[in-house]
Amino acid sequence: MTPSNSSNHKLLKQALGVHAGGKLETHSRTPLDSDSLRLLYTPGVAEVCRHLKAHPKDRLKYTWVGSTVAVVTNGTAVLNLSNIGPSASLPVMEAKAVIFRKLAQLNAVPILIWARDPDTFIATVEQIAPSFGAIMLEDIESPACFAIERELQRRLAIPVLHADQHATAVVVLATVVRAASFLHKPREGLRILIHGAGPSGLAIARLLHIWGVRQIIVFQNDGKPWPGRRNLTDLVQERVAAFTNPKREQGRLEELLVGKDILISTSRDFRFTKQMIARMAPKAVVLAISNPQPAIAPEEALAAGCAFALDGTTVNNILAFPGLFKGALEAQAGRFTDSMLLAAAQAIAIATPKRQLVPNQLDRRVHHFVAQAVKHMVRAVKVKKRPL
Amino acid sequence: MTPSNSSNHKLLKQALGVHAGGKLETHSRTPLDSDSLRLLYTPGVAEVCRHLKAHPKDRLKYTWVGSTVAVVTNGTAVLNLSNIGPSASLPVMEAKAVIFRKLAQLNAVPILIWARDPDTFIATVEQIAPSFGAIMLEDIESPACFAIERELQRRLAIPVLHADQHATAVVVLATVVRAASFLHKPREGLRILIHGAGPSGLAIARLLHIWGVRQIIVFQNDGKPWPGRRNLTDLVQERVAAFTNPKREQGRLEELLVGKDILISTSRDFRFTKQMIARMAPKAVVLAISNPQPAIAPEEALAAGCAFALDGTTVNNILAFPGLFKGALEAQAGRFTDSMLLAAAQAIAIATPKRQLVPNQLDRRVHHFVAQAVKHMVRAVKVKKRPL
Repeated sequence: MTPSNSSNHKLLKQALGVHAGGKLETHSRTPLDSDSLRLLYTPGVAEVCRHLKAHPKDRLKYTWVGSTVAVVTNGTAVLNLSNIGPSASLPVMEAKAVIFRKLAQLNAVPILIWARDPDTFIATVEQIAPSFGAIMLEDIESPACFAIERELQRRLAIPVLHADQHATAVVVLATVVRAASFLHKPREGLRILIHGAGPSGLAIARLLHIWGVRQIIVFQNDGKPWPGRRNLTDLVQERVAAFTNPKREQGRLEELLVGKDILISTSRDFRFTKQMIARMAPKAVVLAISNPQPAIAPEEALAAGCAFALDGTTVNNILAFPGLFKGALEAQAGRFTDSMLLAAAQAIAIATPKRQLVPNQLDRRVHHFVAQAVKHMVRAVKVKKRPL
Repeated sequence: MTPSNSSNHKLLKQALGVHAGGKLETHSRTPLDSDSLRLLYTPGVAEVCRHLKAHPKDRLKYTWVGSTVAVVTNGTAVLNLSNIGPSASLPVMEAKAVIFRKLAQLNAVPILIWARDPDTFIATVEQIAPSFGAIMLEDIESPACFAIERELQRRLAIPVLHADQHATAVVVLATVVRAASFLHKPREGLRILIHGAGPSGLAIARLLHIWGVRQIIVFQNDGKPWPGRRNLTDLVQERVAAFTNPKREQGRLEELLVGKDILISTSRDFRFTKQMIARMAPKAVVLAISNPQPAIAPEEALAAGCAFALDGTTVNNILAFPGLFKGALEAQAGRFTDSMLLAAAQAIAIATPKRQLVPNQLDRRVHHFVAQAVKHMVRAVKVKKRPL
């Protein structure tokens, strides 16, 4: 029995109990009796269809489309399990749908797609897009996830977001905003090392940069910090390489970590030791957010002298995606913009209790506050609305 | 104001009230608190995914897929409104999903597809098939609907059914089974005229023939009964033409109706008068099932001397599709077979109260009985199971 098997057997048993029968159901919002049947079904429904044909925008009023998110995956990058395929990834998609319902009062439908190639994936989502008010992409391998998100954003008139990238980046930014205030450092002065250059690492670097952090190093597992590394596989990687590591620091991961204020580890392919963490700046912050195993346990990092250390169960995109989609849908935004992501991060930071870096994930008020912030930002900067 | 506008304005107003906010919601089957979160989401969910990767069949146990139907359309043949497109057709798909929940305790998700061309439609449904336990095709124009159903049945390992064809045919057959018993006629002796050669007319002819009716005439709106008509647009039409009208009767619609026991009108493109109906056989049965307008009102047909006259609000596939899908899913059937359709029709006929041709659509016991009949038939004739 592998260590994973033995240590996780109890967790599996408990989890199967919660997942038995599936975690999601579709319900009717109307009673079904002979009076309602003739209105919700034939002959009444024909009048509603005719009305929607004449007034397309009213489908947001008379169907569920305006409050329904598709949670779309091909199961190629699920947690630490990598490419397990669409069917085995369904429990994660159902969990996201449960969270959408419970924390943002939104409908959400798992959509599992066979295709691993981006073109087929994109064409499929484009074809089913009229069914939904927004698309959340989830657990798609890199670099395909970049092309898929970019192309769907271009083709569709509804908001599309790859959660592993941008919802995660929003939560990390919120944490960094709080950390900066604790460290009494301006954002330009923060020295941040991001470990792992997957979709989340890149999106975090990008959003921190947009917010104003200037000293970011991204370290990939091949042992060289950017830039200077060859074969960057996607435009997104190239763009991040261009603005990171302005001082051209070089060295091994543990050497680069010396003196840094914040370590953000998105990978579990490297184990950080107490000794490494101890050489960070005084009052350092460690966010070891890879799931389900962090690159260093928070207790260990704290024992090494960190001011704060959190793992992926606490710094998790669950804090961001419900409010992001709720706000975008309520404002009828045609897409997600960087200002919406920044607004969500600021809202999470503001909603965080004193002496904490992040709020409680299950605090409904936080999610409501994020949704409101996103919605107001859509209006303030006049984000393009979804067309008829 | 057109007659349709004026007469239907009140119906529209009432119906909009029922449809406001949409008729469907996704709900969570589990509570969301800090205890359940670590099991339904990370880290517990990773163990469940790993388990499903190793034991694919368990996804029927630990996800919602085994009890979830996709209701799929491109909105090209919606009720009497013809090609209104996917978005305007959503109220019908939501209604079907409401009915699935209320009458068969199944989940159902409307899937709207842009493509009018069969190839793109088929490729799209094939790509998202792992999301669902079965596919109900709905309101797709002819002849595309035939190719779409046939090809999806061939490619997918889960049950696929075009409801407008086969669920409608099941209900009509149930009605005919009851009518034969009232008329004290063996099935071979029944003289049946089917008006309209769209998907439902053809499927009705086909299923009646399989059950054993031998004297069926299909009359299309161009004024000639089959065979003898040219340019049949699909294999399905050719097959139906081959077994119908064995006596090679010719004439106008009203001439062919003379002496018939049962008229099944699936079209509203011809108005039947009392005089025409009066020339049918004694104790004739009229099923004018086009929706929302029948080719003759039941009261008129009864006044012309019919024994029974029903319209599409009573003889409606709502009586068949919930139980068909419930039975197929519970038996884990890999497809629908003719024996399953026949079993469903027999079950509806058996469940019909004395002195009626069809049972109450909202009687939950009927739907349960249909599901049981379908499930037992799957086992009796050993229908191929869905593979891992």
